[in-house]
Amino acid sequence: MSPIAPESVRRVACVGAGVIGGGWAAHFLARGYDVTAWDPAPDAEARLGRLITAAWPAVEQLGLADGASPDRLTVTDTLEDAVAEAQFVQESAPEKLELKRDLLAELDAATASDVVIASSTSGYPMTDMQTTAARPGRLVVGHPFNPPYLIPLVEVVGGEATESWAVDWASAFYTAAGKSVITMERELPGFIANRLQEALWREALHMVAAGEATVADIDASITEGPGLRWAFMGPCLTFALAGGEGGMAHMLDHFGPSLKAPWTRLAAPELDDALRSAMVDGCADAAGERGHADLVAERDQGVINVLRATGRLPRRAGEQA
Amino acid sequence: MSPIAPESVRRVACVGAGVIGGGWAAHFLARGYDVTAWDPAPDAEARLGRLITAAWPAVEQLGLADGASPDRLTVTDTLEDAVAEAQFVQESAPEKLELKRDLLAELDAATASDVVIASSTSGYPMTDMQTTAARPGRLVVGHPFNPPYLIPLVEVVGGEATESWAVDWASAFYTAAGKSVITMERELPGFIANRLQEALWREALHMVAAGEATVADIDASITEGPGLRWAFMGPCLTFALAGGEGGMAHMLDHFGPSLKAPWTRLAAPELDDALRSAMVDGCADAAGERGHADLVAERDQGVINVLRATGRLPRRAGEQA
Repeated sequence: MSPIAPESVRRVACVGAGVIGGGWAAHFLARGYDVTAWDPAPDAEARLGRLITAAWPAVEQLGLADGASPDRLTVTDTLEDAVAEAQFVQESAPEKLELKRDLLAELDAATASDVVIASSTSGYPMTDMQTTAARPGRLVVGHPFNPPYLIPLVEVVGGEATESWAVDWASAFYTAAGKSVITMERELPGFIANRLQEALWREALHMVAAGEATVADIDASITEGPGLRWAFMGPCLTFALAGGEGGMAHMLDHFGPSLKAPWTRLAAPELDDALRSAMVDGCADAAGERGHADLVAERDQGVINVLRATGRLPRRAGEQA
Repeated sequence: MSPIAPESVRRVACVGAGVIGGGWAAHFLARGYDVTAWDPAPDAEARLGRLITAAWPAVEQLGLADGASPDRLTVTDTLEDAVAEAQFVQESAPEKLELKRDLLAELDAATASDVVIASSTSGYPMTDMQTTAARPGRLVVGHPFNPPYLIPLVEVVGGEATESWAVDWASAFYTAAGKSVITMERELPGFIANRLQEALWREALHMVAAGEATVADIDASITEGPGLRWAFMGPCLTFALAGGEGGMAHMLDHFGPSLKAPWTRLAAPELDDALRSAMVDGCADAAGERGHADLVAERDQGVINVLRATGRLPRRAGEQA
């Protein structure tokens, strides 16, 4: 294989132009790429135009790449026209396995064999989607978060038939295109962030179904609580900080027993020595040279910045709501 | 009962002065209250001093209430001295049921019967904790998030023996003290936010235990992804927006089947008509007069503000990491 260098890519194709595919198109346009797009829906071009128009003020604020323009979008009549000249293809079709399988096989047939094709699937393993493609080695998952033009994360992972160069290439390309990449070593349905999101989401649905909380309660419980921290400090390091100077080790030893309490409908894992060490060591690695006081100061400043940024500093005593 | 008006409270007691109790003390001091604190640990006073010193620059940035000062803290030698003059008591002892039960009974005995006593418990229902108190009617849960001086949320709920005036009083007091309150109609182990957090946390532990993700992957997957949105838009409204112009109804109809996929170790609830309606109607209520385009614009501006506030605007195409 002699694929183009990831940072030399100029033309990308977005196949499927709904909320996610259109969001990808907005992102790549903002980063200065030429973008071709195709979608079988009759109103796709108009809808895509509305989406990019709505996204543009946001991407302008982030700072456009040199030469970036919404005019560098071409909506094509056929899938083949969309990908013929593309140096990278982002597939964002509806979340149906058969459909994705067929579409990826078509994209494979319509592109040179050294062009990486990434699927935006939010949960299917590439191993299950690449079964009918003739040259599945360059098929990867590149799973974004909505909207792709603002949320940095992309999860990159290959399937069993994916060649390792394609995973490396995709990770390098997304990084060059301004994304924040997690490259996964092995397939996991739902990848990482969606598994976490989905666990939270299922618990929320359970609570609404049981009449235990409303949609408003659930949303407020996150935005006024853990969500403020999670914008800049993940759940592991956040939990470690809640352990005070004892950190993650203290938290696991202290709250280990309550893992057995029926707090969620999700069964708890066995908190054995290996898991305990993985969590404690992982948090130590994450902290690096920063001591407990440094992390507390960083977290506090982070929350204040986020509260300011979202216009929600707490009311002062005596002020009215 | 003729309790003091919630907005007239001037003296509060913090019983238990670890990370949470100390964080409460910092919050109440910053909001201009006189605070008494008691903790049985021999080094409690020194540790509490360090915690308040570390918190003070943060609460100063939020803006102190008139007259607020760390000097208005008194650490007492006995529990009785701490609560004798208090107009509100916040209990933040370690998370052990027997200990909390005994401590709440002691606090009950040491305070006038119209003083509301709130427990910071992160999971025990008040019904299980108030069993040995002589006058359990004024015992409530007031569950904060760490650090209490920065994260607005408090979940307020009573137990079976709690009188409704005490729940109302606590909600009004916390609001006057600058907190954001969710008052729960019924007890639910883990309350709302912790149930959601805990579901995510359990899934994270499962992934680490199975070697599917590292601590670093998990934290990055949240801070670079969903965590950015959750700082200002909860999971329900976020999910509704991902449905494009079709909103929550489209998302439930489209992704309903994938709820059955084994994405998390948590069993999915049945997505019946009642649950579907509760979710769709709840999101419609949350949106209010704001149409889809308004919400998209609001979300986009929110993410940009949070990215700016946390120093993490995406890199531009061509820039090096």
